[in-house]
Amino acid sequence: MSKGITSQKEDYSKWYNDIVVEADLADHSAVRGCMVIKPSGYAIWEKMQQTLDRMFKETGHVNAYFPLFIPKSLFEAEEKNAEGFAKECAVVTHYRLKTDPQNKGKLIVDPEAKLEEELVVRPTSEAIIWNTYRGWIQSYRDLPILVNQWANVVRWEMRTRLFLRTAEFLWQEGHTAHASKEEAIAETEKMLNVYANFAENWLAMPVIKGIKTANERFAGADETYCIEALMQDGKALQAGTSHFLGQNFAKAFDVKFANKEGKLDYVWATSWGVSTRLMGALIMSHSDDKGLVIPPKLAPTQVVIVPIYKSEEGLEKIRQAILPLQRSLQAKNISVKFDDRDTQRPGWKFAEYELKGVPLRIGIGERDLENGTLELARRDTLSKETVKMSEAEALIEKLLQDIQSHLFERAKERMKTMTHICDSYEDFKRLLDDKGGFILAHWDGTPETEEKIKEETKATIRCIPLNNPPEYGKCIYSGQASTQRVLFARAY
Amino acid sequence: MSKGITSQKEDYSKWYNDIVVEADLADHSAVRGCMVIKPSGYAIWEKMQQTLDRMFKETGHVNAYFPLFIPKSLFEAEEKNAEGFAKECAVVTHYRLKTDPQNKGKLIVDPEAKLEEELVVRPTSEAIIWNTYRGWIQSYRDLPILVNQWANVVRWEMRTRLFLRTAEFLWQEGHTAHASKEEAIAETEKMLNVYANFAENWLAMPVIKGIKTANERFAGADETYCIEALMQDGKALQAGTSHFLGQNFAKAFDVKFANKEGKLDYVWATSWGVSTRLMGALIMSHSDDKGLVIPPKLAPTQVVIVPIYKSEEGLEKIRQAILPLQRSLQAKNISVKFDDRDTQRPGWKFAEYELKGVPLRIGIGERDLENGTLELARRDTLSKETVKMSEAEALIEKLLQDIQSHLFERAKERMKTMTHICDSYEDFKRLLDDKGGFILAHWDGTPETEEKIKEETKATIRCIPLNNPPEYGKCIYSGQASTQRVLFARAY
Repeated sequence: MSKGITSQKEDYSKWYNDIVVEADLADHSAVRGCMVIKPSGYAIWEKMQQTLDRMFKETGHVNAYFPLFIPKSLFEAEEKNAEGFAKECAVVTHYRLKTDPQNKGKLIVDPEAKLEEELVVRPTSEAIIWNTYRGWIQSYRDLPILVNQWANVVRWEMRTRLFLRTAEFLWQEGHTAHASKEEAIAETEKMLNVYANFAENWLAMPVIKGIKTANERFAGADETYCIEALMQDGKALQAGTSHFLGQNFAKAFDVKFANKEGKLDYVWATSWGVSTRLMGALIMSHSDDKGLVIPPKLAPTQVVIVPIYKSEEGLEKIRQAILPLQRSLQAKNISVKFDDRDTQRPGWKFAEYELKGVPLRIGIGERDLENGTLELARRDTLSKETVKMSEAEALIEKLLQDIQSHLFERAKERMKTMTHICDSYEDFKRLLDDKGGFILAHWDGTPETEEKIKEETKATIRCIPLNNPPEYGKCIYSGQASTQRVLFARAY
Repeated sequence: MSKGITSQKEDYSKWYNDIVVEADLADHSAVRGCMVIKPSGYAIWEKMQQTLDRMFKETGHVNAYFPLFIPKSLFEAEEKNAEGFAKECAVVTHYRLKTDPQNKGKLIVDPEAKLEEELVVRPTSEAIIWNTYRGWIQSYRDLPILVNQWANVVRWEMRTRLFLRTAEFLWQEGHTAHASKEEAIAETEKMLNVYANFAENWLAMPVIKGIKTANERFAGADETYCIEALMQDGKALQAGTSHFLGQNFAKAFDVKFANKEGKLDYVWATSWGVSTRLMGALIMSHSDDKGLVIPPKLAPTQVVIVPIYKSEEGLEKIRQAILPLQRSLQAKNISVKFDDRDTQRPGWKFAEYELKGVPLRIGIGERDLENGTLELARRDTLSKETVKMSEAEALIEKLLQDIQSHLFERAKERMKTMTHICDSYEDFKRLLDDKGGFILAHWDGTPETEEKIKEETKATIRCIPLNNPPEYGKCIYSGQASTQRVLFARAY
């Protein structure tokens, strides 16, 4: 139970890990850097998937599936992309095991089953997809292609953390093909907006939309758009990216189309993705020392009913009394669980549902039946109120909406408080150490300065916010002229 | 268009491949043995997934996710399972690529990034999951565990066919843990029934439920239950399996629980799965020389409306006239597409939707508007009728149900016709060559006879049907005594 959770103040990083493990969301596996996503965690991920999938389909996208493996010669075709991911690629070199002649019962890799060409386990799928698109696209009539894939990917990270950075993770990757640059850029921006909408209205997590600097750009992209969120400890988290890939992959894989005038041109591309990393973002946006807090729209169980009874008879009375409410909530697509386990006491259950983040808890005892009341407890504020049974349905519906918006407003307020405007490098460093958060500061626009600041402070430019107001000033590091502030932070 | 489809009579195997490729369901990829599942194919798979996922949840299961990779030492722990899959395992040996010093722009595997222990790409997940369950299970209170996983798996097959046998495929694998043998067997049977229900009532594909012989059993199982279907060409297809794993994996991974009496015992296990192979089963159950036939319950588009018009004005009139029907069908959760593309003529569209298997097609022209009629065409029977617009809604709803049941009845009738009772080995061989189909014949119960028959005829025992009536007879091969007939066939 929650006794096992380190407090945020004591050690935020440990708190995070405790939440993930104690709330049964995920755990480390026997495979270095790979996690097991447990049923409680996967159920939240499923809600995210369903919502995003609907949003993708509403914006005209369809799903498909491409191979897990990428032949090395294809992988290296787009040089920047290959260079960007080469250092973290898992590589399949053999296709068979055999019994160890020295040690029966043990297996060894069969040296005779060596692949002629090694296969890279996809760290991202641009290469295999654009190699495929070459066969799909002849003319402008074949465009646009608006495809998404739900898949696992592997990036051999040296330092891993549950959900935030794992060697294997689950994600979706959209890969679209267009006849013009304008259309591809519009798509990149459209999907950024889908992500921002999802982050703010489902995860209840405010985000800053922006563009990455060249240093932080996706390998192989002309431009990377991103949404950046701020966690409770003042560190930033990149929650989703949408890339304008220009004609880079079309050129690398020779994907041309005949335009309306019959002329051949290279196809324009985008790709965009979010991953199980969002689970980490969710946790670090709302949870507290008692455990997980899940926004109602993503909670697999939105309302839990805990009966407080002394006898089987009492339990049965409560069950019957609460059934109409349970049914009417379910009819409104509100997920309700009635916890009648007799192996645990109500107090234990209360703590468990706090730990697991169920948004609303109903406590109902035999005395409540006499009074026609029940107790409603909110997970976000931990407040309780006794309400009339007859008013419960409408109230619960309203409360779920309130919790959803309260979580967003609270996170937004925190982001506001933790966003600082800063004009000197000394202040910048002190702010980072004392308060963390987002820092809006002037930058001279050079990769060198960006790199120096990163080396010295571990802060990176999270993005150049979209619609950034022009403002003349001097770079906090070099003193050179600058025309806008950019968003710095230390980040996950 | 369908001109490209070889007829079933000419070459069934080529016909199958043509359907898959021409109906845009899937295609070969640049990776040996791996397929690309195209949007039209993936949309059907999504419908299958949604239905099965709902059925799994209704029977108390939850989803989770386990690592793609299995360390070799874990993989080999359950010896029979390891032996069964060792010959087709893709193996990751390195975790980094680097630039080829001899050839800039090319990558080579970095010899310094060799893994201490090789990782097997999961061909099935019993090993990694039971290694995980050890940490989840202490007492009978932790049981049962009813977990399912949607995932990709890799089995390095030498001869591959789209959907039917590919090196990588998508599937779901249920892995459950129980306190008693009886409960585990009941679970195995329950999930077999879920699969049979899905096959018959969604795929419209009749199946025989049965038990595999020891030869054909899943490696590591005590008993393998299966559903076997019969394709149009008389070959059988194993459409789903449910394994009673006994305590084999619990013993291999040391997973014990304290029972109610406080005594330690090994945990009982099941696993069960169906895969994208079902796409192949669907195709070969119903489709014809004009293309794909999809049962309405799995059709991403159930009704397509093709307007027949001469002018923009005419199109607009048709659009307005048909809109109420379109809306009322959609309100009943019937998926309707209005195809207003001006790049193709109606005749071309008719052929296209026949090729793609849309169950019902509405043709509506300007003259129909005057008469208040429209034309309804069924994909399964290729029959057409002109009906009153006012009666269309009710009729379409009924027709979709009719098509679903007609496809099932037709396939059931075919299976009946193609199931033969046979009492001599000569007849057996002649039947296989002349007609194919299921053959019910006596077998002496020995693996040796089974093996001989397989060698000589390529027919295997598909299963010993459940509730098989006892019948005394003589083995068609050895002449030895037998107490029941078993189900033979050549199979995919």
